[in-house]
Amino acid sequence: MRETWIVGAATNRFGRMAESAREAAARVAMEAIDRAGLSPKDIDHTFVSNAFGLAEHQGHLGPLINTALGIPEVPSATIESACSSSSAGLHEAFVHVAGGFADAVLVVGAEKLSHLDTLTATSYFATGADFPFETRNGATFPGLYATLASAYRSAFPLTPETMAAVAIKNHANAALNPHAHFQKEISLETYLSSPIVASPFRLYDCCPFSDGASAVVVAAKEFIKRPAATPLVVAASVRTGSIVDMHDRTDLLGLPASRRAGELAFRSAGL
Amino acid sequence: MRETWIVGAATNRFGRMAESAREAAARVAMEAIDRAGLSPKDIDHTFVSNAFGLAEHQGHLGPLINTALGIPEVPSATIESACSSSSAGLHEAFVHVAGGFADAVLVVGAEKLSHLDTLTATSYFATGADFPFETRNGATFPGLYATLASAYRSAFPLTPETMAAVAIKNHANAALNPHAHFQKEISLETYLSSPIVASPFRLYDCCPFSDGASAVVVAAKEFIKRPAATPLVVAASVRTGSIVDMHDRTDLLGLPASRRAGELAFRSAGL
Repeated sequence: MRETWIVGAATNRFGRMAESAREAAARVAMEAIDRAGLSPKDIDHTFVSNAFGLAEHQGHLGPLINTALGIPEVPSATIESACSSSSAGLHEAFVHVAGGFADAVLVVGAEKLSHLDTLTATSYFATGADFPFETRNGATFPGLYATLASAYRSAFPLTPETMAAVAIKNHANAALNPHAHFQKEISLETYLSSPIVASPFRLYDCCPFSDGASAVVVAAKEFIKRPAATPLVVAASVRTGSIVDMHDRTDLLGLPASRRAGELAFRSAGL
Repeated sequence: MRETWIVGAATNRFGRMAESAREAAARVAMEAIDRAGLSPKDIDHTFVSNAFGLAEHQGHLGPLINTALGIPEVPSATIESACSSSSAGLHEAFVHVAGGFADAVLVVGAEKLSHLDTLTATSYFATGADFPFETRNGATFPGLYATLASAYRSAFPLTPETMAAVAIKNHANAALNPHAHFQKEISLETYLSSPIVASPFRLYDCCPFSDGASAVVVAAKEFIKRPAATPLVVAASVRTGSIVDMHDRTDLLGLPASRRAGELAFRSAGL
C-alpha cells in the first residue's frame, strides 16, 4: 500500500447557498486543488459525495463538476451513504490511491435543500432511514433520534441541564468556527426556554438544514507537488456498517459500527 | 494487483416488479452469493448501484440490503453514475479486490420506477442530463437522443429502413433473452407503422421503463470457494468520462469516453 496524503482541502460557509450544489462543488474543488499546488489535469478520479442531488433535479454530478473543472475525461461517480456519504467518498479515494489505481483523487461533497419547504426537506432526510416500516409511518429524524435519547434516559440519569451542556458546548464551538451555519453562543436560560421539537430534544439540540460544499484532494506521497498548508497523512481508513432500521436493532444505546471502525482503524494504523 | 474474478451472478426478469428495489436487490444478491459457493459472511464490502432509490423514498440502501442478508456490519455505499451506475459499482469492486482491500465484494444494482406515472418517471431519468440548461427547459432523454440521431442523419445517410434494422435486431435478441422485459420479435411493417416518439425515433427505437435487479460477486482468485457455472477473470477494468451537457460538446457524433475506455482497457489487459 502506498502512503496516502490529504494534500488540499476547502469548504464554504455552511448555511443558505445561492449557488446550486453543482456550482458550489466545482468552486470548492478548484480551491482544494489549488491549495494542493495541483491543477485539475493532475486529478485521476473524482468522487462526489451527495445524497440529495435530486432536490435540484440533478443527478450524475461527477462529469458535470469535472466539465466545470475542464477535465470531463476524468472518471467519476457519486457516492451516497446517508450521513456518512463524505467519509465513504474519502475512503474510496484512499483505496484508489493506496492501491495504486490513481495518483490524485478529488473528493467533493455538496448538498442543497434550503430552497425546499420544511416538510419536503424533512422527507428527503427521512430517505436515510427505513421507509416501509418507519418513515412511511411518520417517523422523522428528530423523532427517531428522540426515541434513542428516551431509551438512553431510561437507562441512565439525564437531566435537562445535562442535555443543555451538550448544546451549549456545541454552539460555543460553532461561534469559533468561521464555516459554521450559526455562530452564536447560547445560555442555559435560552436553551431551557426554547421550544421542544421532539421530546426530550429542544430547538437547540437539533441541527438546522444547512447547505454546504467541501472538497479534499487525496494523493500518493510521491505525487505531492507542493505541501498543503497542513498536509495530513492518512494513517488508516476503514469502514464498517450497522443496522439502519431502528426496529431491527438489538441495542438502542450502542454504536457498534463506530466502535468496530475505531478498533479496526487503530489496528490498521499499527497504533 | 491480485487476479480478480466474477464468481457469481444473478438477475431477475426485467419489467414491472412487485417487490421494492431493496427487496429485489437482497434476493438477487443472495442468489449471486449462493451461486458463487459463498455465504453472506464471506462478503467484505457491498456496493449498491442505484440512481433512483428516492422514487421509493428510500436512500441508504447498502446497510438495508446487508441487514436483509444478515451482514449489517459489512460496509457499503451506493454508487450513482446515471446509466453507468452498474459499471461504476463493478469497477469499485474490482479496485477493492485487485488492490487487496477486500477478498469478496458484492455489487448489486436495482431500480424501480414503474409505480410512477410517465411524467414523473421521465423527470427522474432527466436528472441524468444537465438540468439548468437542458432538462429544465423541457429536454427529455428521448428528445436529447433524437437530437443526436438528427445530427447523425445530417452527416450520414440514414433511411427509415436502416433505423428499423437496429430495432428489429434488438427485439429479435430480446426474444431470446429470458430476462428481457419484452420478448417479442417485430416486423418491418410493425416498426414503420408505429408512432413517432421524438423524430426520427419511433416507438420501437425507445426503451421502456423497466424495473430490475442484478448482482455479481467479485473475488480474488485465492478466495474462490466453488467455481461459478461460468467464472470470469476480469482482464481489465478502467473508467473514463466525458461531457454530459449536450450544449458543451464539441462533437455530437463521437463517443470519446467509450473510445478511450476501450483503448485503456486493452492496454491494461496487455492485449
